[in-house]
Amino acid sequence: MTFDHIAQVVPDIAEAVAWYTANVPGTRLLYQDATWAFLEAGGARLAFVLRDQHPGHLAFRVDDADLERLAAERGASVKPHRDGSRSFYLEGPAGQSIEIISYPKGDPFR
Amino acid sequence: MTFDHIAQVVPDIAEAVAWYTANVPGTRLLYQDATWAFLEAGGARLAFVLRDQHPGHLAFRVDDADLERLAAERGASVKPHRDGSRSFYLEGPAGQSIEIISYPKGDPFR
Repeated sequence: MTFDHIAQVVPDIAEAVAWYTANVPGTRLLYQDATWAFLEAGGARLAFVLRDQHPGHLAFRVDDADLERLAAERGASVKPHRDGSRSFYLEGPAGQSIEIISYPKGDPFR
Repeated sequence: MTFDHIAQVVPDIAEAVAWYTANVPGTRLLYQDATWAFLEAGGARLAFVLRDQHPGHLAFRVDDADLERLAAERGASVKPHRDGSRSFYLEGPAGQSIEIISYPKGDPFR
């Protein structure tokens, strides 16, 4: 299980991207639209999401077989995403969301 | 500027450590007391802190000269920590805290 990304809920996606671009030298924008963005800052991958779409979370990457096994063990249902990834959520400490994610079609941002 | 760690506010430090140890294979506990803990999970470094001591934050590492320069540019005051690190905080997107940190005496957890 490998750390994959941090996702933070923000009110304005473009504002969050602008903040990192201005304040963390070398920030690379990987994807942006009005509903979410993905960037690399200082070697970490950060997603910005809107409150009604995704919870803020930390994501750990596994291969697809492990994703199925772990989801089955926990009675969770795996959901496909627009970019080809698949994932489910665990409830972590203090109610925080932990996403377990696989990229069966390859990671679109690497 | 290099990504250094994620810090999350939790109500119970030991419970958070136990969750990661149980759910993220290979989690390595680097430090733990009743007020904070630090662990490595899937290659990421996670701190757990109590609400009245630190804000939840993302931390980026710089060298000590850059820390002084960046703090001066922003009128921020650098604070020393118990482990020899020094840092200041920026207000990131959506009011999130971003810590800029240096380890002039070396990183005690590497």
